[in-house]
Amino acid sequence: MKIWICPGSFDPVTRGHVDIISRSSLMCDKLIVAVGENKNKNSVFTLEERMDFLRRSLKDIKNVEIEGFSGLLIDYARKKNAICIVKGLRAISDFEYEMQMAFLNKRMEEDIETVFLMTNINYSFLSSSAVRELASHGGGLDGLIPDCIVDDVRKKYFLRNNGVK
Amino acid sequence: MKIWICPGSFDPVTRGHVDIISRSSLMCDKLIVAVGENKNKNSVFTLEERMDFLRRSLKDIKNVEIEGFSGLLIDYARKKNAICIVKGLRAISDFEYEMQMAFLNKRMEEDIETVFLMTNINYSFLSSSAVRELASHGGGLDGLIPDCIVDDVRKKYFLRNNGVK
Amino acid sequence: MKIWICPGSFDPVTRGHVDIISRSSLMCDKLIVAVGENKNKNSVFTLEERMDFLRRSLKDIKNVEIEGFSGLLIDYARKKNAICIVKGLRAISDFEYEMQMAFLNKRMEEDIETVFLMTNINYSFLSSSAVRELASHGGGLDGLIPDCIVDDVRKKYFLRNNGVK
Amino acid sequence: MKIWICPGSFDPVTRGHVDIISRSSLMCDKLIVAVGENKNKNSVFTLEERMDFLRRSLKDIKNVEIEGFSGLLIDYARKKNAICIVKGLRAISDFEYEMQMAFLNKRMEEDIETVFLMTNINYSFLSSSAVRELASHGGGLDGLIPDCIVDDVRKKYFLRNNGVK
Amino acid sequence: MKIWICPGSFDPVTRGHVDIISRSSLMCDKLIVAVGENKNKNSVFTLEERMDFLRRSLKDIKNVEIEGFSGLLIDYARKKNAICIVKGLRAISDFEYEMQMAFLNKRMEEDIETVFLMTNINYSFLSSSAVRELASHGGGLDGLIPDCIVDDVRKKYFLRNNGVK
Amino acid sequence: MKIWICPGSFDPVTRGHVDIISRSSLMCDKLIVAVGENKNKNSVFTLEERMDFLRRSLKDIKNVEIEGFSGLLIDYARKKNAICIVKGLRAISDFEYEMQMAFLNKRMEEDIETVFLMTNINYSFLSSSAVRELASHGGGLDGLIPDCIVDDVRKKYFLRNNGVK
Repeated sequence: MKIWICPGSFDPVTRGHVDIISRSSLMCDKLIVAVGENKNKNSVFTLEERMDFLRRSLKDIKNVEIEGFSGLLIDYARKKNAICIVKGLRAISDFEYEMQMAFLNKRMEEDIETVFLMTNINYSFLSSSAVRELASHGGGLDGLIPDCIVDDVRKKYFLRNNGVK
Repeated sequence: MKIWICPGSFDPVTRGHVDIISRSSLMCDKLIVAVGENKNKNSVFTLEERMDFLRRSLKDIKNVEIEGFSGLLIDYARKKNAICIVKGLRAISDFEYEMQMAFLNKRMEEDIETVFLMTNINYSFLSSSAVRELASHGGGLDGLIPDCIVDDVRKKYFLRNNGVK
Repeated sequence: MKIWICPGSFDPVTRGHVDIISRSSLMCDKLIVAVGENKNKNSVFTLEERMDFLRRSLKDIKNVEIEGFSGLLIDYARKKNAICIVKGLRAISDFEYEMQMAFLNKRMEEDIETVFLMTNINYSFLSSSAVRELASHGGGLDGLIPDCIVDDVRKKYFLRNNGVK
Repeated sequence: MKIWICPGSFDPVTRGHVDIISRSSLMCDKLIVAVGENKNKNSVFTLEERMDFLRRSLKDIKNVEIEGFSGLLIDYARKKNAICIVKGLRAISDFEYEMQMAFLNKRMEEDIETVFLMTNINYSFLSSSAVRELASHGGGLDGLIPDCIVDDVRKKYFLRNNGVK
Repeated sequence: MKIWICPGSFDPVTRGHVDIISRSSLMCDKLIVAVGENKNKNSVFTLEERMDFLRRSLKDIKNVEIEGFSGLLIDYARKKNAICIVKGLRAISDFEYEMQMAFLNKRMEEDIETVFLMTNINYSFLSSSAVRELASHGGGLDGLIPDCIVDDVRKKYFLRNNGVK
Repeated sequence: MKIWICPGSFDPVTRGHVDIISRSSLMCDKLIVAVGENKNKNSVFTLEERMDFLRRSLKDIKNVEIEGFSGLLIDYARKKNAICIVKGLRAISDFEYEMQMAFLNKRMEEDIETVFLMTNINYSFLSSSAVRELASHGGGLDGLIPDCIVDDVRKKYFLRNNGVK
C-alpha cells in the first residue's frame, strides 16, 4: 500500500490546501494529512480546531486520514511507513524553503521522497497567513477557505478583536 | 481626477521612498501617501513622527497628501476613490511579496490596480530596516534618508541607546 | 494629455496582452500599443498581421492606438511625448529582464517612467511563445488568445506545417 | 495501474536523469521514459542513440519503458493513460520554466498531474548541455553520465571535432 | 599583509561554515573569523560557547583568528585593516540578503570588498537554524556540524528540553 | 604569487567589467583577464579587437595581463597556476548560471576557487549584449563603456549597419 503524507500547520486550511490534498489523494492508496502541533509557533487555531476544519473540508475524500503530529516530520513519516511527503508549491515564494527541507529530509531518510505539486494557479497568491491577515481586519474570506468553515473562522476573529481569547 | 495611493509604514521615510513618491506624483492628479498605523508591528517611530518626517521630506511636491490609515489597505483605497496603488520595487527582494499582495488586492477589488515603479538603482539596497539597523549602531545616515530628518532620526536612537524610551 | 506606451512584439497577441492593455488604457488619456518591427528576431506573423490581430482584439477600447515601430523604444517614446512605458509582469519569469530594460531606459531618458502591472493570474503561464509552440503541434488555442483571431492563427500554422511559407 | 511519464530530450542522459527515473519508478506501477523527437531543436545525438543510451543506463529498473514521442507531451500522456508527468527540479534554474509548462499542461488536461522531485544535490549543477559543453572541449565526463555510455559519448565528440558529422 | 574577515553568528558553527573558512584561509594571509555578539537576536549558544566551538573546529587552520565583535561589521573590518569580507553563498536562499549587505557595506567603506564563495554543494541545504531545529527534536547531527562539537550541542539541547536554561 | 583569472568574452568590455577587474586586481598579485575565443558563439568584435579594447581600458592597472584562450576555462586556469577565478555578479540575473559554472569547475579542479564580487550598483543593468543592442540602434554609449573605446565601437556598428562586414 502506497502511503503519502501531506504535512502542514493548516492554520486554517485554505482552498489551496484542499486542492493539493484532493489531487494527491488520487496518486496514492492512503494520504495522511499530518497537522503539526508546533509548540513554539503560536497558532491562532488550536490543534483540535485545525483538525476539525480539515475533517469538514475533506469529508468527501475517501482515502484521507487526518492526524496531529509533533517532533520531526521525517520520524513521523517513517513510523507511518510513508513512501513520500507531498507539498504544494505556489507560483510565488515557497520554492527555496521547500527545497531546503526536501534535501534535509532526504539526507535523514534516503527511502522517503518529497514530491511537489503546483498549487492551482487561482490560489497561488493564497496562504494561511494571508487569510489570517484578512480575517483580522474583517475582510471577506469567501472563495479563499472552504465554505463550511468560513463562519467559524470569522467568529473566532470577531471574539479575538473584542478581547475574548 | 485620477487619485493614486502610495502606502507604507515609512519607519522612517528613506530617499528611496521619496524617489518613488515624487515620480508617481507626476503620473496622477493627486497622490495620497498612506501611512500604516499597524498596531501589531511595533514601529520605532510613532505614526505622528513618521507623518511629520514625510511632510518635511515631501514639502515641495504639490499634489501629495499624507494620511494615516488602519485596517485593510484596499478598503481605504476604495473609500478614497483611488484608481491605483503604487509601489516601488527594488532590484532586490520585494518582488514576490508585492506580487502576492497585488493579486490579493485585485481579487478583493477588481477596479483598483496596483502599479509598480522600479526604485532608483542607487537606492536599491536601501530599506527602512537597513536604516534602523545602521542608526542603532551609530552608522552614518547621510544620503540614505532626506537631509531634513537626519538629525531627528539620530537623536531618537541616541536616546533609545541611552535607555530613554 | 497623459500618453502611455505598451510595447511588444505581439507575435501573436495573447489574452494576457489584452488584459494588460485594457487595464492600462483606464489609467491614461491615450495608450499607444507599439508593435516592434524587429528585423533580427524572426517573427512568425508579419508586422501587418500582428497589427491586424491587435486591431481586431482591441476594437472596443476607445483610447488605444496601434502603431509599428523600429529602432530604440525610448527614442520612439520620446517622439510620441509619452510619459511612461507600461509592461505586464507575469507571476513567472519576466522580472529580471524587464527590470534591466527599465533601468536602461530610465538612464537614457530620465523623464519617461516604466510602470508594471501584474498580468491577470489566469494568464501568468501564458506567453506568445507558448501559443506558438502549442499551435505548431495543433494544440487548442481557445481561451489563450482572443476568440476573433483563433481561426487565423490556426490556419497560418496549418499552412506552415504543410510546407506553405 | 498507475502509469507515470518522465519526458525529456536526454541528449545525452545524465546521472541526474537516472537518479530521478529510478526514484520515480518506485512510486508508480509503470514509468514511461518519453524521449522527445524534437525536429526543430537540433539534438547532438539521434533519437535512436539517445534511446539506446537510456536502455543501457536503465537496464536494472524493471518497470521502465523507453519510447520516442513527437507532438504535444500532454497528448502523448493522454494516449498512454498516464496519471502524471514527473520532472526533476535542480536546486538551480529549472523552476520557472517547469512551473509554466506544468500550468499549461494542467490547463489542457485537468486529469493529468505534474509532480516534481528534487534532483540529487550532487547533480544539481549538472545538465545535458553542461555535458555537451564539456565533451566538446575534451573535458572528463566520469561521474556525470552513466559509466556505460561514457566511451560512446566521447567517441561521438571526437569524430565531430575531427570533421565527421 | 592581506587580511580577510569571515563574519557570522555561528550559532552553532556548521560544516558549511568550516568549508568556507578553510577555503578562504588559502586566499589571504590572515583570516579573522568574526563572531557577532548581537544583543537583540537571542542566540542559543553564548558568545563564549560559539567561539569555543569554532576554536575546536578550526584548530588545524594556521592563519585563522577567532574574535567576537559588536557594532557595525564595517567599522570592525576597518579597525582590523581588512581588505575584504568573505561570505558563503548557498545554492539556496542567501543571495538577495547578502547582496543588499554587500552594497550597503561598500557604500559605507569604498575600500573594503565583499567576496562570495559558493558553499560546498553538499552543505547547500544546511544552516545553523536547520541544525537548531533538528537538535531541538533530537534529530541526528552527524555530518552536519564538526564531529568534535556534536556531543556538546546535543547536551545543551537535552538540558533545554528538560527545563534547564 | 597569488594569481587570479577574470574570464569573459568582453564583446565589448563595459564599465562594469572594468570595475570588477580593477577591484579584483587589488586582491591578488597578478590578474589575468582571459578573453574567450569561442568559435561557436559569434562575437561582434574579433578576438584581437576585444583584447585591444581591454588593453586600452585597463592600461592604468599594473598587475593585469590580457590573454586569449580557447578550450575549457578550468584547464586554462590550471595551466596558469591560478588559485581562483573571479566573476562579477550583477544585482540582476547572473546568479544561477554563474553558480552552476562554479560548481562544475570546482568538481573538475578542487584546488581552484571561484570568487564573486558584486558589480557596482550603477552598472547592474549593464551587459555587453545591452551595449550591442543599443549600438545597433545608434543609441548613446557614453558612461556604459570606457570613453577610450566609444568611437571605435560606434564606428564598427555604423559600418555594419551600412552593409560593411
